[in-house]
Amino acid sequence: MNVDAVIAGMLPELGERAEPERAARVFWSGVAEPGDAVAGALLSCVPALAALRIASYPDEIARMTGIGARAAADASARWGPRLHEDLVSDALQRARRSRVSILVPSDPEWPDAVDDLGDHAPIALWVRGDPRSLSVPGIALVGARAATNYGEHVAGELAAGVARAGVSVVSGAAYGIDGAAHRSALATRSGSTVAVLAGGCDRSYPAGHEQLLERIAATAAVVAEVPCGAAPTKWRFLSRNRVIAALSLATVVVEAGARSGSLNTAGHAASLGRPLGAVPGPVTSPASLGCHRLLREYDAVCVTDAAEVRELAGLGASQPLVVAGAWTNERTRVRDALSSRVGRDAGELAQRSGLAIAEVEAILGSMLLEGSVVGDVGGWRRSAGR
Amino acid sequence: MNVDAVIAGMLPELGERAEPERAARVFWSGVAEPGDAVAGALLSCVPALAALRIASYPDEIARMTGIGARAAADASARWGPRLHEDLVSDALQRARRSRVSILVPSDPEWPDAVDDLGDHAPIALWVRGDPRSLSVPGIALVGARAATNYGEHVAGELAAGVARAGVSVVSGAAYGIDGAAHRSALATRSGSTVAVLAGGCDRSYPAGHEQLLERIAATAAVVAEVPCGAAPTKWRFLSRNRVIAALSLATVVVEAGARSGSLNTAGHAASLGRPLGAVPGPVTSPASLGCHRLLREYDAVCVTDAAEVRELAGLGASQPLVVAGAWTNERTRVRDALSSRVGRDAGELAQRSGLAIAEVEAILGSMLLEGSVVGDVGGWRRSAGR
Repeated sequence: MNVDAVIAGMLPELGERAEPERAARVFWSGVAEPGDAVAGALLSCVPALAALRIASYPDEIARMTGIGARAAADASARWGPRLHEDLVSDALQRARRSRVSILVPSDPEWPDAVDDLGDHAPIALWVRGDPRSLSVPGIALVGARAATNYGEHVAGELAAGVARAGVSVVSGAAYGIDGAAHRSALATRSGSTVAVLAGGCDRSYPAGHEQLLERIAATAAVVAEVPCGAAPTKWRFLSRNRVIAALSLATVVVEAGARSGSLNTAGHAASLGRPLGAVPGPVTSPASLGCHRLLREYDAVCVTDAAEVRELAGLGASQPLVVAGAWTNERTRVRDALSSRVGRDAGELAQRSGLAIAEVEAILGSMLLEGSVVGDVGGWRRSAGR
Repeated sequence: MNVDAVIAGMLPELGERAEPERAARVFWSGVAEPGDAVAGALLSCVPALAALRIASYPDEIARMTGIGARAAADASARWGPRLHEDLVSDALQRARRSRVSILVPSDPEWPDAVDDLGDHAPIALWVRGDPRSLSVPGIALVGARAATNYGEHVAGELAAGVARAGVSVVSGAAYGIDGAAHRSALATRSGSTVAVLAGGCDRSYPAGHEQLLERIAATAAVVAEVPCGAAPTKWRFLSRNRVIAALSLATVVVEAGARSGSLNTAGHAASLGRPLGAVPGPVTSPASLGCHRLLREYDAVCVTDAAEVRELAGLGASQPLVVAGAWTNERTRVRDALSSRVGRDAGELAQRSGLAIAEVEAILGSMLLEGSVVGDVGGWRRSAGR
């Protein structure tokens, strides 16, 4: 393959930012499959154009990246069949027709968050819509295609609450939970929502979500790391999940069977050190099994409303919520009614706080739980030191 | 009050184990309200009979227990009105009529677990049924009176699974979750279930559970720390919850509103250092709000079936369950199919493990989550060191 001819042929298709290094990186996004760590390592060591020139030379790859001879030979063997001149020419034409822009890491619109993937970071991002949407703080809401009405309802509620706070809803545009989340985000006024696809971003997949994807592209962005026209293979679905996790401050699994693919997204969030939340559901519902596994075994945080989702992502506590606020106020009134010295019974605390006895007792129960109150037959007292 | 006359009058009512020290302790169980820490401290310092002789002398109480003069004076003032000769004579007659036996700590049937309550431990236990049932390992299943069909269904499932394993179901005999748990435990062959009442154990409370309580007493035990005939006051409900928690290896809240009294039982379990579980439910159900708070804020363990409840209580893992077992076996097959050196794709792993590709991918997702596998475009490999 004549690298210079390839690059020269690509430049006219790359718009105003066209230059050889960008062209070489875009070409690489067609050569390497998503998450190819050898390609990632190579591109972090040498410029994309130089990397292209040594792509067929395992010794050079090994020398540049420091990886073993065997891994370098494997990588070169993987890339070989794709190193032909017209690899991305069709993709570039499709991109122009569908107004898809291509981002590389040097672009100001590049979402730095994905670089946390290290050698597994995307090489380029193909974006239908507004590339700046990728840098809006986002929260991933993902889940099973085989969702229940309950799951779709909750996904919708969470997405609306997230979007209303000006936070982007990131998901995978699948049927079920993903679709419900995107749709609900679009229905809010700000409505930023980003769909990350496993195939080319100009291909509507699933086909039944063509209109939904068009609306997402018109409002924010549909993004893929593979070139336009590329097929959504099984491997690309799994690796796409890491991009969803990486683009997001936190990932929340709304509903997932015991073996749902969204557990894979959860895994990526966890390995990136990003907060992971799971929505509980009826224990009798197989569609919530995966969420309960995340809560039990993987230390996921139990989230039940949009305020808790925002809190999980570090975007302000759930305080403003009416229910939480009321609870907090009444708690404060009980705390005020307590003495650390003199024991008081629930009846007296009810009188002092102006709350019902049953309410006071429930609040005392929760304060007992956190150790901020002690009680015996002499009555309830504030714990020393609280 | 003539202490010697009181004790002499009680002895004929106390059956074959009758002796003055037992009589004095039984009398104390009528003098001090449940959880009276001054009474608890006093009875741990001096014999019950001697304690009775100094109950009206704050200086003596303070000297013996080391508590402050004010607390001693308060305690003595609390006890004063009850120090009359016929305080428990009616209760003892009721006990004989209802075949209630009375346990004190020196009895072989005394459940040592309650002594973890320290100065708050019960002074005596009034038991309708078989006192030995109190020493069967137990798990508390508690929850809201205002339970949903879902909550009662799950309580029934958990109780059946707990009882079938020969573990006692401990609860409070209230309507809703408590009743469903007792009833389901009774329906199993072993069927051990213990009801802890806030009032006298010979009083059926709630009245609608009279038959249920009779069946519990006939199979295992209905227990109270207050004498027969005593009224179930609000204070006694709250303090009863600590006995439920103390009699149990673990406490599981099945359903609880944001301010349910069962959060109080959860608090006692936590302060005893006993494992605390909560059953998730729909986030749209107010009856599960309290459980979700326990999961989010109090580090309760998410439990979804009886095997997980037993595991919480340290009674064997959930392995034997069919679903969990299958999952584990298939996981093992995938692990066997992985190499730590050579990358393999899901298709090859499916072939090697004899599982469907989708299954392999789901298992890989969960292994990725726990860090036992790494994957890139070269395929999946076992993590080094696992």
